[in-house]
Amino acid sequence: MERNSMKTIGMAILLLSSCCWAQNTDSFVPASTNVPGAEYPRVDSGSRAQFRVKAPDATKVKLNFWSGPKLDMEKQADGFWTVTTPPLPPGLRYYTLIIDGAEVSDPSSYAFYGGSKDASMIEIPESGATYYSAQQVPHGQVREVWYHSSVTGDWRHALVYTPPGYDEQAKMRYPVLYLQHGGGEDETGWIRQGHANFILDNLIASKAAKPMIIVMSNGNARRAGYTPPNLAGKPFGSPEMMKAMQEMSQAFEDDMTQVLIPFIDSNFRTISDRDHRAMAGLSMGGMQTFQVTFDRLDLFSYIGGFSGAGGMSMMRGDQTFDTKTAFNGALADPAAFAKRVHLLWIGVGTEEPAMMHAGIAKLHTSLDEAKVAHIFYESPGTAHEWQTWRRDLKDFAPRLFQ
Amino acid sequence: MERNSMKTIGMAILLLSSCCWAQNTDSFVPASTNVPGAEYPRVDSGSRAQFRVKAPDATKVKLNFWSGPKLDMEKQADGFWTVTTPPLPPGLRYYTLIIDGAEVSDPSSYAFYGGSKDASMIEIPESGATYYSAQQVPHGQVREVWYHSSVTGDWRHALVYTPPGYDEQAKMRYPVLYLQHGGGEDETGWIRQGHANFILDNLIASKAAKPMIIVMSNGNARRAGYTPPNLAGKPFGSPEMMKAMQEMSQAFEDDMTQVLIPFIDSNFRTISDRDHRAMAGLSMGGMQTFQVTFDRLDLFSYIGGFSGAGGMSMMRGDQTFDTKTAFNGALADPAAFAKRVHLLWIGVGTEEPAMMHAGIAKLHTSLDEAKVAHIFYESPGTAHEWQTWRRDLKDFAPRLFQ
Repeated sequence: MERNSMKTIGMAILLLSSCCWAQNTDSFVPASTNVPGAEYPRVDSGSRAQFRVKAPDATKVKLNFWSGPKLDMEKQADGFWTVTTPPLPPGLRYYTLIIDGAEVSDPSSYAFYGGSKDASMIEIPESGATYYSAQQVPHGQVREVWYHSSVTGDWRHALVYTPPGYDEQAKMRYPVLYLQHGGGEDETGWIRQGHANFILDNLIASKAAKPMIIVMSNGNARRAGYTPPNLAGKPFGSPEMMKAMQEMSQAFEDDMTQVLIPFIDSNFRTISDRDHRAMAGLSMGGMQTFQVTFDRLDLFSYIGGFSGAGGMSMMRGDQTFDTKTAFNGALADPAAFAKRVHLLWIGVGTEEPAMMHAGIAKLHTSLDEAKVAHIFYESPGTAHEWQTWRRDLKDFAPRLFQ
Repeated sequence: MERNSMKTIGMAILLLSSCCWAQNTDSFVPASTNVPGAEYPRVDSGSRAQFRVKAPDATKVKLNFWSGPKLDMEKQADGFWTVTTPPLPPGLRYYTLIIDGAEVSDPSSYAFYGGSKDASMIEIPESGATYYSAQQVPHGQVREVWYHSSVTGDWRHALVYTPPGYDEQAKMRYPVLYLQHGGGEDETGWIRQGHANFILDNLIASKAAKPMIIVMSNGNARRAGYTPPNLAGKPFGSPEMMKAMQEMSQAFEDDMTQVLIPFIDSNFRTISDRDHRAMAGLSMGGMQTFQVTFDRLDLFSYIGGFSGAGGMSMMRGDQTFDTKTAFNGALADPAAFAKRVHLLWIGVGTEEPAMMHAGIAKLHTSLDEAKVAHIFYESPGTAHEWQTWRRDLKDFAPRLFQ
């Protein structure tokens, strides 16, 4: 018993030790996405990554990049399984391990909410890219706030970036960007995965972007009392799914416009007019952005769609987009639109799935043909992934509130 | 390709669907620690829990509570493994799954940083206990801040709770509680696991506690340039380990007193004298608290040790504690101590490991015998776990700054 107590107390108190003893012996270094002390996964200067997991009794272990290679790991004599990848594109990549058929997180990685669960990611550094890491510049704060929503009937959690100096400049008021995550992710994505706070810290320090507040809320909204349909067996795009999507989108819009925006405007020193309010989002968040902003041009004057502009029809490769009728006719008069909307920004990675890329490229050419002022940004060599969206934000934010 | 693109886009955008369709058919309900949409693990009114994981090709799957039962799961025909636990004590419990020898997180649970990794936890509700959940009261904010430390040589991340009304009461200044996590955990523990913000929201709303700022920093500190020793093979409590512990503790103390406190005092509206500064911590954080506060009684006047008061000697069951010489003699004159230190608070759960309980109980009786004013709190029926520390904070916080 003494020995066991000792062990328990030792475990409980001294797990701290794992923070400090890890050392490396070759050119591979632990990934920045690892928990402290974890030597694997690790990355070398050629963007190859090595993974290692203990599974002494398993018969098959696979490394499963959600977008990327699926690799068999090799069992070593010590019960660990290892694999070295080919060079990987830079950026932050979701992965799981498949251990005898069980898809699980890598115990060596921090967890990131994506794919509707806390999953593993590995950061592959992009050579020379410092814009999304903590530099020697003033840092803003990221604030967790809770607001009670009459739309969803529960306490909702949001993150709010306040720029450097917000507390010191007690009389200053700031414009606001509402910035939404994608499907399967949540309000933490733009900070944990995207490093939106460091991107803005760096842009503000170099005076490339105006100091602004960024609000990140949970795009997965369900109206109080709503019972969702059972979609099991229904195909993607089925009428039942579209109706459920629409219901969720409308609940999100109502929560945002009726509860969240008033909450932010009364709890932060915002400039609360449409000229100082922007909205952008990625993927699902991009679709939500187009829905909310075009429904409520009285509230917004800057619009950004990152790999998710337009609506469901475009996502499905529909080529019938018509600037005369789309978005309740808001684009029909390009001169009036340019006066009313200070920025319409759409972006896509060159390596995104073909229909996604085609849909957004089509929106761009349709806007061009109709002479609707907008920015079209293609992220070279990146897919439907966070490296695309970090670049999007870096291009988008400096165009706001100028 | 079209079909695959469709599938990819569908996956990417419509993972949202998993947020909304889960439904239950019996008296078990999904645990509050689950990711949205996950039906398992689930808990019934008798505090039994059911777990379920897909591992079609595994030969053995175990449910592994770190403190609690280790249970074999049973394979079902559909490739899922399931188990129902006996009734579990209320509170938040760490667990992992062991799948053919691989210790991994449950994909259905949110990840919580503990045991030096992102692990799974399940919340077993305590009947009638509302003090640590979000109630219909004003909520404070939890702010992420980054500060550059000349002691550790890097950017450090801390969380700061600001009480309800902090931004509105622009002239008001607040006392500060520095609140530390335990070994293997980090600065997120008191919010994610402990719900310290909701505990304070509720105490402040009922006027049981004064509005205060709470600062939670990372207790795992390493001095810039320090190379830790290789402790492989060294026994618990070895001179090498004690020296490494001491080095880490001193780096933490220096970071806290030389960098963090000045940073907080210059970035938040604190009352920056010792009468309005408290420190408490759990387990390793309790030991750090006693070290830092007794070294620096010029900075602190409220002291709390949650399952980790005293020093390493007590943790090891050493019975030689002497109030005349301990803590640099600070307790030698009880009257002078009571004047100088407004609160000395120690707590322990009745079900903690025997030596932990004995060490803290011994500290209590020694203080009693020497007539050193202090509070001793025993949490009934709880062990070295978060339910103990939530109760500790609920008892401790109302005694501060009165």
